[in-house]
Amino acid sequence: MMRSDSGADDIVKKLINVREFEEEAKKRIPKNAWEYYRSGANYELSLRESEAAFDRLRIRPRFFNQDLSNRDLRTQIFGHGLNFPIGVSPTAMQKMAHPLGEVATAKACEAMKTIYTMSTLSTSSIEEVALAAPGATKWFQLYIYKDRKMSLDLVRRAEVAGFKAIVITVDLPIPGQRYDDLRNKFVLPSNLRLANIPPQLARMSHEEDSSGFVSYVTKQFDATLTWKDFEWFQKQTKLPVLAKGILTVEDALLAVAHGASGIVVSNHGARQLDSVPASVNT
Amino acid sequence: MMRSDSGADDIVKKLINVREFEEEAKKRIPKNAWEYYRSGANYELSLRESEAAFDRLRIRPRFFNQDLSNRDLRTQIFGHGLNFPIGVSPTAMQKMAHPLGEVATAKACEAMKTIYTMSTLSTSSIEEVALAAPGATKWFQLYIYKDRKMSLDLVRRAEVAGFKAIVITVDLPIPGQRYDDLRNKFVLPSNLRLANIPPQLARMSHEEDSSGFVSYVTKQFDATLTWKDFEWFQKQTKLPVLAKGILTVEDALLAVAHGASGIVVSNHGARQLDSVPASVNT
Amino acid sequence: MMRSDSGADDIVKKLINVREFEEEAKKRIPKNAWEYYRSGANYELSLRESEAAFDRLRIRPRFFNQDLSNRDLRTQIFGHGLNFPIGVSPTAMQKMAHPLGEVATAKACEAMKTIYTMSTLSTSSIEEVALAAPGATKWFQLYIYKDRKMSLDLVRRAEVAGFKAIVITVDLPIPGQRYDDLRNKFVLPSNLRLANIPPQLARMSHEEDSSGFVSYVTKQFDATLTWKDFEWFQKQTKLPVLAKGILTVEDALLAVAHGASGIVVSNHGARQLDSVPASVNT
Amino acid sequence: MMRSDSGADDIVKKLINVREFEEEAKKRIPKNAWEYYRSGANYELSLRESEAAFDRLRIRPRFFNQDLSNRDLRTQIFGHGLNFPIGVSPTAMQKMAHPLGEVATAKACEAMKTIYTMSTLSTSSIEEVALAAPGATKWFQLYIYKDRKMSLDLVRRAEVAGFKAIVITVDLPIPGQRYDDLRNKFVLPSNLRLANIPPQLARMSHEEDSSGFVSYVTKQFDATLTWKDFEWFQKQTKLPVLAKGILTVEDALLAVAHGASGIVVSNHGARQLDSVPASVNT
Repeated sequence: MMRSDSGADDIVKKLINVREFEEEAKKRIPKNAWEYYRSGANYELSLRESEAAFDRLRIRPRFFNQDLSNRDLRTQIFGHGLNFPIGVSPTAMQKMAHPLGEVATAKACEAMKTIYTMSTLSTSSIEEVALAAPGATKWFQLYIYKDRKMSLDLVRRAEVAGFKAIVITVDLPIPGQRYDDLRNKFVLPSNLRLANIPPQLARMSHEEDSSGFVSYVTKQFDATLTWKDFEWFQKQTKLPVLAKGILTVEDALLAVAHGASGIVVSNHGARQLDSVPASVNT
Repeated sequence: MMRSDSGADDIVKKLINVREFEEEAKKRIPKNAWEYYRSGANYELSLRESEAAFDRLRIRPRFFNQDLSNRDLRTQIFGHGLNFPIGVSPTAMQKMAHPLGEVATAKACEAMKTIYTMSTLSTSSIEEVALAAPGATKWFQLYIYKDRKMSLDLVRRAEVAGFKAIVITVDLPIPGQRYDDLRNKFVLPSNLRLANIPPQLARMSHEEDSSGFVSYVTKQFDATLTWKDFEWFQKQTKLPVLAKGILTVEDALLAVAHGASGIVVSNHGARQLDSVPASVNT
Repeated sequence: MMRSDSGADDIVKKLINVREFEEEAKKRIPKNAWEYYRSGANYELSLRESEAAFDRLRIRPRFFNQDLSNRDLRTQIFGHGLNFPIGVSPTAMQKMAHPLGEVATAKACEAMKTIYTMSTLSTSSIEEVALAAPGATKWFQLYIYKDRKMSLDLVRRAEVAGFKAIVITVDLPIPGQRYDDLRNKFVLPSNLRLANIPPQLARMSHEEDSSGFVSYVTKQFDATLTWKDFEWFQKQTKLPVLAKGILTVEDALLAVAHGASGIVVSNHGARQLDSVPASVNT
Repeated sequence: MMRSDSGADDIVKKLINVREFEEEAKKRIPKNAWEYYRSGANYELSLRESEAAFDRLRIRPRFFNQDLSNRDLRTQIFGHGLNFPIGVSPTAMQKMAHPLGEVATAKACEAMKTIYTMSTLSTSSIEEVALAAPGATKWFQLYIYKDRKMSLDLVRRAEVAGFKAIVITVDLPIPGQRYDDLRNKFVLPSNLRLANIPPQLARMSHEEDSSGFVSYVTKQFDATLTWKDFEWFQKQTKLPVLAKGILTVEDALLAVAHGASGIVVSNHGARQLDSVPASVNT
């Protein structure tokens, strides 16, 4: 069902906007993976709103106010140069879409000179990505698991591999529901593995039992977490630590007060809790 | 047309959200009953608005502010414990949907430990429900009929049967119009009866004449009712008495001033008067 | 195409709301007449808005505040009793819809005890309507034509026939455009006539030439009219004179200042000038 | 595909509003030209909004306040009389729609006595238009090219040809994207030429290479332009100079401060930068 084309092909060269990429991707990606990527939480109110909120934004263009012949979108973050101030958010299990998975995404970010944020739930390992895209500005997304050592081990590996920041997800005290995944009894395809997770744990996600993946995820998450844990955790690394999933001013202030070097305003791709606002409106 | 499955079957086990339950129910329930349940007053402006109003609500999620490992939705109402603060509203004639009717709903509420509010217009009797679900927190919905004794008799039966509150409907001085019911010439199917109504009255609802049920309901309701009647009525029982159907602050204050132990903010499922606001927006 | 049923038939008895009446009417009325009745000015923005504006209105129902057993919608206007405060607006050429035309409408208003407003452009005459519905509260809608005597003659006939008020249309300095009528080259069917207009004038509306009716109407209207003309005109009769077509507070005040006994807030059924507000929102 | 009818035909005489003209035009104009004319920038949010914004405008009609028999929409602009205060904006390459192209449009403006604004990117020349419509009030739309002399030459030709104003487009520092044009690899049909552009330049737009026209346009535009250039430029002619493409109050004030005789509030037909407001809302 998925073609093993390892690079851009003639069709892709003709695509002219992100909607056309999305349509082409849908043709190539197996249904259960496509719906895992596409879907939002519950009735997808927030998913629809997240796109509609962008459509309502209005640009007030100004003209003839400055020489625009040398437009420069370059910026810096934590001392690292970027070509433009837009980065790649963490998304899980990219090999379901393409055999090169996260490695290809990281290499694209390296070429574009922007941030690649790697998901803990990647199908490539920290070390594979670091080896393939040594020049990319790589950040590592992390959950603070009940087993703190398991989380710290991931941080150590990211540090060694040259990652530049740790992004702690705060918006998953309880996993969200995506109806398509429930209907598909979504599990990671058996030829893939969660490459960052120790094998004895990752194996759980391959179970035939429909609740396997969900129960695996559910069991690892720690619903006791508070900002004290965040504060403790960010002291365990010299890398900047960001809090991802903030949707209120109150929590943004608390994140900084507890040592966050930055926040990622995000509704988790509208995949986690339906009825939350669009990130762009927050 | 209606299968006589007495419990949950394999299909039901696979349903994952209320819309899927609704679609499955539509397949199983005879058209005239389905449309009786589904429909709203007149052109259903308020019915559509009642769902749309929920979709517009936004959650502002806060994270890492407290330990969420022991989430506890338990609450108390009138001294009775509930597992969560959502109860079952009174709906009429449930045996049209399933042979177990109100008995099954009451047993479900008992199992979930939440409030079951029984409609006067039930197809199971007060006593059947009480016997089947002795541990449920049961409330009884009541109209104050022209014949006060007929209403008081129902209260006495509810008291004896262990019901915990009386819910007086205030929003039916004149019965609403549902076009589907008018088109279907809706009457209670002849194999069912209004189990709480004395037989000589309940028989009226079986008439072949299309206006039978409507005229029956119309004749029992008392359009002279004011808060004085409510006040008198609530003094006739030691149970807490709630006023159901309140849609304005003014009436909420009047209800309490006249002895109501609580109010139920409700637009009667948008079945009574079209163009009223969604209950959730009131 | 049009059945010659002279009264309500079995189908009509089963209709339960105005939409069903509209659907049934569409089946019975010839296309060019139906579209004349149905259409609004230009792109029908105001026509759509006129219905949507009603749908947005919300009722705040109050309950148990008074005895509702004797609901009484009766009211008086200019000393005449009505059963409820809703009247029938003037609409033109009703015999296109039914052989009894305006006579039937006036008799219905008599039976319902509400106002019947007769259009100058009727296919029944003032005298026919008066004879058929002597007990109806009848008003007469009038344009002030260039030929003032032609307008005054209509007023005299209305006075003699027992009409109770004159309603002067102010919103037609220039006739509106309805695209359906332009497409249909709408003319009054040749078997009908404008019964209130002197034959030598009315004949013009029967011309085969597509522009016949439009040019006839256009030529009679007087674009020089101001409130001074209104003031002069209302002094020519002892009947109350209303100004119909008011859509602003400013004009409402001017109407009264120039002798109007009342105003009719109206956007002319959204048939006259597109982009005006819904009457109900004015 | 395009009929060579040189004048209005029977079908056109029957068209009654601009939508019908649009539908008829779509049948007659080749797809790549039609989509060039029809399309807006990117996802066409601003294109849709530009029409929707008009639909939301409301007229507050006043009646009987003045004699309307002699309605007079005549106005003057820069000392030239117009029959009504609406002019024709510059649009490019009109011979793709009809063999007479800009000449026909200019003659129509002459007949209607309103402004014709000629696009630099016309398929008729300045001189052809001037010869065909000597009495029209003609304005000339201009880009300030990197090669100032090329722009000034166009101004001199417009002056000689009797044009009455120069309209400098300010909203094209970087050309917009229209997806239909990208899909169609839009180029000017080979039988047409940009009649105002020196042949050695215009030839570039005929290249088979899909990027030919886009790259041609891109290369001529000068992204260094500021109001100082506008100010210098407007001093090179005695004609009034307007700034076209203004969408903010701030830029309107700057335009006037730098010598503009007027501004054209415009979002470039929503063809240039998506997400800008509708011109009518600015």
